Amino acid sequence: MKLSQLGEFGLIDLIRKQLKVDSRVIRGIGDDTAVLPYSKDKYLLLTTDMLAEDIHFTRRMSAVDVGHKALACNISDIAAMGGEPTFAVVSLAVPSDLPTSYVSDLYQGMQKVASQFGVSIVGGDTIKSDKITINVALLGEVKRKHLVTRDGACPGDWIFVTGALGGSLKSHKHLRFTPCVEQARFLVKNFKPSAMMDISDGLAGDLNHILKASGVGAELWNDEIPKTQGCSVRQALSDGEDFELLFTLSEKKVKKLLVWQEKNKQWYFYPIGVITGNKKQLVPGKGYIHF
Amino acid sequence: MKLSQLGEFGLIDLIRKQLKVDSRVIRGIGDDTAVLPYSKDKYLLLTTDMLAEDIHFTRRMSAVDVGHKALACNISDIAAMGGEPTFAVVSLAVPSDLPTSYVSDLYQGMQKVASQFGVSIVGGDTIKSDKITINVALLGEVKRKHLVTRDGACPGDWIFVTGALGGSLKSHKHLRFTPCVEQARFLVKNFKPSAMMDISDGLAGDLNHILKASGVGAELWNDEIPKTQGCSVRQALSDGEDFELLFTLSEKKVKKLLVWQEKNKQWYFYPIGVITGNKKQLVPGKGYIHF
Repeated sequence: MKLSQLGEFGLIDLIRKQLKVDSRVIRGIGDDTAVLPYSKDKYLLLTTDMLAEDIHFTRRMSAVDVGHKALACNISDIAAMGGEPTFAVVSLAVPSDLPTSYVSDLYQGMQKVASQFGVSIVGGDTIKSDKITINVALLGEVKRKHLVTRDGACPGDWIFVTGALGGSLKSHKHLRFTPCVEQARFLVKNFKPSAMMDISDGLAGDLNHILKASGVGAELWNDEIPKTQGCSVRQALSDGEDFELLFTLSEKKVKKLLVWQEKNKQWYFYPIGVITGNKKQLVPGKGYIHF
Repeated sequence: MKLSQLGEFGLIDLIRKQLKVDSRVIRGIGDDTAVLPYSKDKYLLLTTDMLAEDIHFTRRMSAVDVGHKALACNISDIAAMGGEPTFAVVSLAVPSDLPTSYVSDLYQGMQKVASQFGVSIVGGDTIKSDKITINVALLGEVKRKHLVTRDGACPGDWIFVTGALGGSLKSHKHLRFTPCVEQARFLVKNFKPSAMMDISDGLAGDLNHILKASGVGAELWNDEIPKTQGCSVRQALSDGEDFELLFTLSEKKVKKLLVWQEKNKQWYFYPIGVITGNKKQLVPGKGYIHF
């Protein structure tokens, strides 16, 4: 059997089956980051993302942007758990005939977003290859009381997103997005969502991850989904790489949040639907499938 | 200018120049792992290694062995700091036509060495690509008093290695080595080396890293260098991927160690030379150059 027949989630299941469960681990595979023991009131977060030339980016795109994306998509994962990013290591596979300026630009892009969010790049590995591959592994930390996972959504909770969805490839948002660290920090401190993740594979696919993990269903208010200018609902549901936050909030907190955002114009959180008790009520449409 | 003209260490310097120094970081780029703040008496260690098909391994090699190597070379880095490995994340780039059994075998190899050394694989990323690339990022921890870096070698210290060097490609040791975690733990608890690292690029190149970091020179006793059967001194100095430990020890502790290993046959530490005050006295011969 080939990996193409198994599909992305089949592959992840296959990998999970090979791995031993460890009681020290608070969360392993299956959330935005791993959650690990740290101190009495904090957890460590650990995540990794790999970008490959001609799959996630092309040589014609700005290397500064590619560097930005390589680190920012990891920062977005830490944010989605309610955490703060701290230290990163970067592995880089590069062809020997690559101009040195490409590597400078790549690290310039990474360092800029690193500085913006308090991340230090503390090590890495460099190897030779035919095409460029960049892997970032990022540590973070979160107060135990601020941790938000994917499995806490309850019937009656409202569903929110932080910004417009769809068309991220055309708009270059997939390369230049700002990870929603501040919004996530604000939310976990003031409203503590019941579930949260970042939208990397598209709203439909990613919301279904929350629904499955939480054992619930959802009704989406399609007219309320914020769409990038020129995008259809279908694109907003499926395009992916928006790196906005998707979260659920209990009805009681929804009222507080709506009152807050009447008065404050700092951010806007878009209510787009409600969690139901019907487990079979998944969101129609699929997210981006990697295989 | 192309990367090939810059060379591996030129590339690392180029990267280092793009990165901001952070006072929280105890050690950044330039040792076996990064050393990060953790608790009153412990540091966190973080390291990463990338393996690429047709550079570090071929499709004909056993996937179990490749998986073993991908994690074991990171475990070796944690050991070289005196630490204990804890949690790993694995990124995997794979062609869609790869048999699923290859991935099972790869993770079987990783899980086996993970279990042996108390490591949990807690997450990762899977992407599509033309060739296989595996990146492992590994966390570890070390008591502050047990941390050993590369820059503490002093004139008069003896130089030791833990095992035979050279020919690791032919013997398949480069794929099947056991990382020297136990030897390193024993050493830091009982003899606290003044400097330590693992031999990945060859004794000559790696010893020169210790010499440069410590601002010292060395005399090697070529006849004393333990060689893999059938290997010349030149091969022992240059072949690389032995993943033995290389460490330096003050004269006072050398006597204690030699007495200890007269009586105990658990391990043998080979004395191979002495550190000198002459900074220009580098080791002739080069390690493996990646570009």
